[in-house]
Amino acid sequence: MAEVKNKQVVLKDYVTGFLKESDLDLVENTITLKLPEGSNEILLPLFGYGVAKVLESGHPDYKKGDLVWGFTKWEEYSLVPSSRILFKIEHTDVPLSYYTGILGMPGMTAYAGFFEVGLPKKGEKVFVSAASGAVGQLVGQFAKLTGCYVVGSAGSKDKVDLLKNKFGFDDAFNYKEEPDLDAALKRYFPEGIDIYFENVGGKTLDAVLLNMRVHGRIVVCGMISQYNRAQPEGVTNLGNLIMKRIRMQGLAVTDYYPMYHKLVEYVVPKIKEEKIVYVEDIAEGLENGPAALVGLFNGRNVGKQVLVLARE
Amino acid sequence: MAEVKNKQVVLKDYVTGFLKESDLDLVENTITLKLPEGSNEILLPLFGYGVAKVLESGHPDYKKGDLVWGFTKWEEYSLVPSSRILFKIEHTDVPLSYYTGILGMPGMTAYAGFFEVGLPKKGEKVFVSAASGAVGQLVGQFAKLTGCYVVGSAGSKDKVDLLKNKFGFDDAFNYKEEPDLDAALKRYFPEGIDIYFENVGGKTLDAVLLNMRVHGRIVVCGMISQYNRAQPEGVTNLGNLIMKRIRMQGLAVTDYYPMYHKLVEYVVPKIKEEKIVYVEDIAEGLENGPAALVGLFNGRNVGKQVLVLARE
Repeated sequence: MAEVKNKQVVLKDYVTGFLKESDLDLVENTITLKLPEGSNEILLPLFGYGVAKVLESGHPDYKKGDLVWGFTKWEEYSLVPSSRILFKIEHTDVPLSYYTGILGMPGMTAYAGFFEVGLPKKGEKVFVSAASGAVGQLVGQFAKLTGCYVVGSAGSKDKVDLLKNKFGFDDAFNYKEEPDLDAALKRYFPEGIDIYFENVGGKTLDAVLLNMRVHGRIVVCGMISQYNRAQPEGVTNLGNLIMKRIRMQGLAVTDYYPMYHKLVEYVVPKIKEEKIVYVEDIAEGLENGPAALVGLFNGRNVGKQVLVLARE
Repeated sequence: MAEVKNKQVVLKDYVTGFLKESDLDLVENTITLKLPEGSNEILLPLFGYGVAKVLESGHPDYKKGDLVWGFTKWEEYSLVPSSRILFKIEHTDVPLSYYTGILGMPGMTAYAGFFEVGLPKKGEKVFVSAASGAVGQLVGQFAKLTGCYVVGSAGSKDKVDLLKNKFGFDDAFNYKEEPDLDAALKRYFPEGIDIYFENVGGKTLDAVLLNMRVHGRIVVCGMISQYNRAQPEGVTNLGNLIMKRIRMQGLAVTDYYPMYHKLVEYVVPKIKEEKIVYVEDIAEGLENGPAALVGLFNGRNVGKQVLVLARE
């Protein structure tokens, strides 16, 4: 009955406003690498989507040595309740970290959001905010593969370069250099926007609403600009929904997990044929997790932020 | 070639903020009751949906004596371009004024908004704002006929009584007596709202967003509380769209005119069997039009505001 040291990242207390590294603690516990008889309530490590290897299993669907991805804790070793969704990894000839991104939750979010909620048609005009992020970079590439015109916004010159030169967006701009977002959108979309893939909320949404086309669709995936505000920015242009018959729809990725095989079928061949690329920002070691997490909220990461705890 | 006097209501100038009666003028012109050879640009009378009788027609689908409804000017006699949608009235055994309401644009709005955009299911919980108005009173009755639970809000005790005792809403409240709309909605919808039929916008929408159920739908029909504001109220709770997977969709009734026959088939028998009632607030004479119009924006009307210029 091996007992090993187990590092964990825990939240010290409830956080208001922006998360700071000092709100997080790295602690070290021990864990017994054997299924316990009773409960395993210990601490409250942070949760997130991760890739892991099964060390022991009481569940008939998973056996020792299986690689899985799903909702895990921020710790080196985890006891996972059988009720929690874990997907077995079938394709191991792509980087395993992709199962936290393009082949994981963000991939499924981009796929379901763009295709199932956005219902794109060839030739339509697509705008993506936070476009170089874990989800946005995929939405842009899916849009190009569908024959759409796609423009992305991001928060630095490097990210804008990535959008244009690596992900194949038709155009891209740095929103921090656009004091008048409405005017910027009118420049990139003189005929208006058919599909807006919403990752940021607030003022961006307000400017987009002024530039949507009749029967446009707004896929509401995230509103990261609003998450750390005590009081969200008010959105004032919702009246545009009426005359333009806009459909604005939120999505939660968990609704679409039953169709996860469709993402795998669509994406894996395209990764191998290099028709889709995926950019990750990799931090090594649990001790660098807090800084990486905080970095997400001020846009420090470029591409999907991944934290590596161990390698195969 | 009969030339007759023709009263018209015209707008004196562009209006900002609330419309006042003094912004409108009643003018008297003459009109020749014969099709002119050339153009007929004269003044700019207000437009609205009306019922009229054809006096002369150069269009093969309409002949002298036909009753029609559609987009008309605020004047006693109108020359209507052939491009403008006019529906011929087939059923004359219901009040002709109904073709400005339950059998006209508001009826089609309620029908398409509730059934086609709202996609209601038996047993669902429905909230309607401005519920005693031209559209709202129908949405509530359609909801009851579909087996839903429906609550309406309105701005006076008389209107609330109407909702409960005449239109058969399960419950109703006066929003002016509810300083905390969120708390009011939690009282009427302890399990949350499946369908919100949005007629008002602003603070009401913000409170509703907090009380929507997972996979709820918001049918955006109007935002009358915002129309006269120089700066609309900001809506801050849109983040709820994501986790609750809410679909919020605007509608423009013109998209649904091709299915107008479905409204007639659904509604006419129910009017005759008294399974649906329709309340109108009738003003007589074009000279009372300006006051009636202004009254819409401060809720003076009870039910669909109709202006009668002539009777059959």
